[in-house]
Amino acid sequence: MLQHESIFEVRGYELDSFGHLNNSVYLNYLEEARWEFCREYILVNNGGKYEFKNDLFLVVIETNIKYIRELVLFDKVMIKSKYTCEGDTIIGDYVLINVATNKKVATSTSKLIFVNKDRIIHSIPDELKDLLKG
Amino acid sequence: MLQHESIFEVRGYELDSFGHLNNSVYLNYLEEARWEFCREYILVNNGGKYEFKNDLFLVVIETNIKYIRELVLFDKVMIKSKYTCEGDTIIGDYVLINVATNKKVATSTSKLIFVNKDRIIHSIPDELKDLLKG
Amino acid sequence: MLQHESIFEVRGYELDSFGHLNNSVYLNYLEEARWEFCREYILVNNGGKYEFKNDLFLVVIETNIKYIRELVLFDKVMIKSKYTCEGDTIIGDYVLINVATNKKVATSTSKLIFVNKDRIIHSIPDELKDLLKG
Amino acid sequence: MLQHESIFEVRGYELDSFGHLNNSVYLNYLEEARWEFCREYILVNNGGKYEFKNDLFLVVIETNIKYIRELVLFDKVMIKSKYTCEGDTIIGDYVLINVATNKKVATSTSKLIFVNKDRIIHSIPDELKDLLKG
Repeated sequence: MLQHESIFEVRGYELDSFGHLNNSVYLNYLEEARWEFCREYILVNNGGKYEFKNDLFLVVIETNIKYIRELVLFDKVMIKSKYTCEGDTIIGDYVLINVATNKKVATSTSKLIFVNKDRIIHSIPDELKDLLKG
Repeated sequence: MLQHESIFEVRGYELDSFGHLNNSVYLNYLEEARWEFCREYILVNNGGKYEFKNDLFLVVIETNIKYIRELVLFDKVMIKSKYTCEGDTIIGDYVLINVATNKKVATSTSKLIFVNKDRIIHSIPDELKDLLKG
Repeated sequence: MLQHESIFEVRGYELDSFGHLNNSVYLNYLEEARWEFCREYILVNNGGKYEFKNDLFLVVIETNIKYIRELVLFDKVMIKSKYTCEGDTIIGDYVLINVATNKKVATSTSKLIFVNKDRIIHSIPDELKDLLKG
Repeated sequence: MLQHESIFEVRGYELDSFGHLNNSVYLNYLEEARWEFCREYILVNNGGKYEFKNDLFLVVIETNIKYIRELVLFDKVMIKSKYTCEGDTIIGDYVLINVATNKKVATSTSKLIFVNKDRIIHSIPDELKDLLKG
């Protein structure tokens, strides 16, 4: 299992007409939490440009999310991520916590797979699989 | 049960660095499909401005989505929506179909509730409940 | 000079906390109007995938926009575009009109250039230049 | 004149199909820089919710932006903002700098006005006007 933490502050343009964080922006935050995870374990820095190793891209094939409490302007939310694997699927488990109140605002699970440039499913690279299983 | 159909054409700015429709934009499409549903059954037109009746807002409390096939620039996707209810929760079931290939590109389920201005849960208005149960 | 018209309907998720179309979404609309223009004059359809010819990409280097009237949910806005060129810069002039009221809601000008894969500026392809000058 | 600095890190979902920060996202960054400015000088914190004083909202009526260099994943960009006023229009001048290279990536100017709930233009509150002129 690999763990990761990210913090986001709700921005004014992310609010919708209800004055709270729009439901789809939570998926943006989750995606960015994954990019940070990728930065640590999957991407290579090629002269200032981050790239996927061996042209293997990580794509999301399923997301489930429960919205528990709303988030408003300037709220800080921490995403606690845990990554494991089942076969060649990476499972991301996410808990989103309002930093000021310490209350859970959402929970989410995503399934991720590696694909190559031709969109063919590829097994999880061994090195990463060992870490996910560890 | 109420049914609704919407069509979206994938826009250039909705593509991400993989060159396909970003995973969070599917939730934008689903939300817009719901706005169209609301337009038909829930909103009132107040001199050109659409508003929720009796200050009862429809908010999403859960979304599950499976991504089956990718969508690229100018692809047309049809969202077939079915709305039912369980108690005071509205259940939206969505099938997303690539219009050109007639293939399923994603399926999704959302749970929705009515809240008032103070974010207190409110029962589904009777008129709508009858339609959802019908 | 080349001309093009596009119509957009304001979507619920494009509203911000003021309940009107967010200022940055106008740039999304302008970009999509350009993608439609590209579809007609610049892109090639490669088995269902639209691609830039000869790996020459059209990028925006400047945008000026004046917001005149706000747009709200379900408003239809027509973008009337005119494209000309000055040297190797394409100039896009845009007028945005509320379809229901026929009133101008915004005006905008963008400067665009072609770049190759290495982000080196490239001259406007002759065929297109003739049309822009015509 | 009032000055303000903000830093943004380019997120994966903000990249478009060219693999660089999409042109409209720069306007999101500029808007968020303004929200931070508002937080300091204009908004009031009403029990955890930030609100505009006296129901006077700050809206953008014009934006000009020049894109000089592209930004890619994880690039950090500093926005240096200067705010002055001309009559009842606030002028925001922005320089965007890539933190790693110290190079200018974009410059922008926005015009902003205060409006009340009925979208009627309102003069700049005296207290703020004094600061902008000082």
